[in-house]
Amino acid sequence: MDFKNKMNIWVGEVNKALDAFVPEKSSPEANIYRAMRYSLMAGGKRMRPVLSLAVCELLDGSMEEVMPYACAIEMIHTYSLIHDDLPAMDNDDYRRGRLTSHKVFGEGIAVLAGDALLNHAFETMINYTYSNPGGITAKLKAMSVIATASGANGMIGGQVVDLESEDREIQAEILRYMHRCKTGAMINASVLSAAILCKAEKKDIEALETYSNNIGLAFQIKDDILDIEGNPEKLGKNIGSDIDNKKTTFITLYGMEASKRMLAELTAEAIDAVEARFAEKAGFLKYLAEYLLKREN
Amino acid sequence: MDFKNKMNIWVGEVNKALDAFVPEKSSPEANIYRAMRYSLMAGGKRMRPVLSLAVCELLDGSMEEVMPYACAIEMIHTYSLIHDDLPAMDNDDYRRGRLTSHKVFGEGIAVLAGDALLNHAFETMINYTYSNPGGITAKLKAMSVIATASGANGMIGGQVVDLESEDREIQAEILRYMHRCKTGAMINASVLSAAILCKAEKKDIEALETYSNNIGLAFQIKDDILDIEGNPEKLGKNIGSDIDNKKTTFITLYGMEASKRMLAELTAEAIDAVEARFAEKAGFLKYLAEYLLKREN
Repeated sequence: MDFKNKMNIWVGEVNKALDAFVPEKSSPEANIYRAMRYSLMAGGKRMRPVLSLAVCELLDGSMEEVMPYACAIEMIHTYSLIHDDLPAMDNDDYRRGRLTSHKVFGEGIAVLAGDALLNHAFETMINYTYSNPGGITAKLKAMSVIATASGANGMIGGQVVDLESEDREIQAEILRYMHRCKTGAMINASVLSAAILCKAEKKDIEALETYSNNIGLAFQIKDDILDIEGNPEKLGKNIGSDIDNKKTTFITLYGMEASKRMLAELTAEAIDAVEARFAEKAGFLKYLAEYLLKREN
Repeated sequence: MDFKNKMNIWVGEVNKALDAFVPEKSSPEANIYRAMRYSLMAGGKRMRPVLSLAVCELLDGSMEEVMPYACAIEMIHTYSLIHDDLPAMDNDDYRRGRLTSHKVFGEGIAVLAGDALLNHAFETMINYTYSNPGGITAKLKAMSVIATASGANGMIGGQVVDLESEDREIQAEILRYMHRCKTGAMINASVLSAAILCKAEKKDIEALETYSNNIGLAFQIKDDILDIEGNPEKLGKNIGSDIDNKKTTFITLYGMEASKRMLAELTAEAIDAVEARFAEKAGFLKYLAEYLLKREN
């Protein structure tokens, strides 16, 4: 099977699992589930859960056991986008080619839909762990990794720095801290939680963390590039929002040429790390890193 | 020891534990922790964690083991207040006698501080369970009860109905559903999670659930009464907000006199249930129900 095919199959399986974890409901819960599903089922890249599945396959783990945690990560990622798009934050009208949650449901329901997705992520993991207690210590450790990554010392911490950095220039060190938290933490958690669930050895985890840290930062640099050079139609959102919000980005700090070089170097290092450890078994992770490098949305 | 004394001691212990679970931090996490602590350490009644501790004592459980879950419930309760006070929701300027979070930190940080407290609640429970795996099945079951109570089918579901009910009259059935979810679910979870952690028998749980369901609804009726007859200084917030928001309450549906009668009846039934099962050991729960009946804030 070629990698693109595998990617499509995994995205399909993630979508199917998400659809089951957050189903349509009848009244009185109908409206909140509709708002949760509007954002969750909007067809994102599913990079994070696909990363978890790729690590699981690489380590000969059980896809069925990894899926609930992978889907929880996607729920957390989606809630963060809903809150990030709010007028009080980035004030974005479009996301993935559709109106943002608060534009469709109003601000109050958008806040609650985000809250509900975050809560549901933990509900999903906890209930699955309770009902499937085999390997319970690894499952709790995986949940701990995810909870730390999404919290005040991880993703939310990054968003706070991001919010505080609008309209003023920040230093390279703070920009890297912000991205390591805001985007990097959950990408890293996708890889690390799956590795823990699949009982990875220490050397495996080291190679996988080098990979995820590198593609996490590369992902953010690519986002900064796309906000200038991207095609709004393919992106599904307007470009130039960093400039409008006077944000410091890799481009404003290092320029476009150096940013593209960093992007290529980080991607190459990510691939080297997993190829050195897993040889040809790292094929899909290599494909994924290159796909993220070349992506247009 | 008299009950009032015991209450004060437990509130003090809860505050100490919360202070340790959500400590002050230095930069770059300083600001988000400051916003989390501003609302969390604002001196609420701590009714929910105190309920957990009371159930724990009643069942001869370990206070140390119950505390992390009790504190997590208080973190969830606090986050719900921060988001509930936002301009897009109830738009309240004061809470517990102090400016609301968004008035002090701005709306963006208030949204993130709420998110961070919800996340931290799960982080706290998961990390404690991982580090203290004795009785792990009961701990996961307690977490599951809490996660379900705070989610789209519990507290958040109630807030959605509340938000959708502004400016229009709703039926008694929907009002009860709303309160059972919005306030009742987490009060019930405080009692039920502690009972599970302390390995309660089925008959214990039945008596405790009758108690918590009754005081949950009584609590809301009392809130509706205080919004009309309360003293703004003692309440720490303005009164009349239900009328301003044209909300259906127990008072608009049944009138003041009948509401007060319902409040007294629900409290009496709550006390009867636990006295019938636990006799004099239910003393503190009786005191707490009467305290909630007579409270002025």
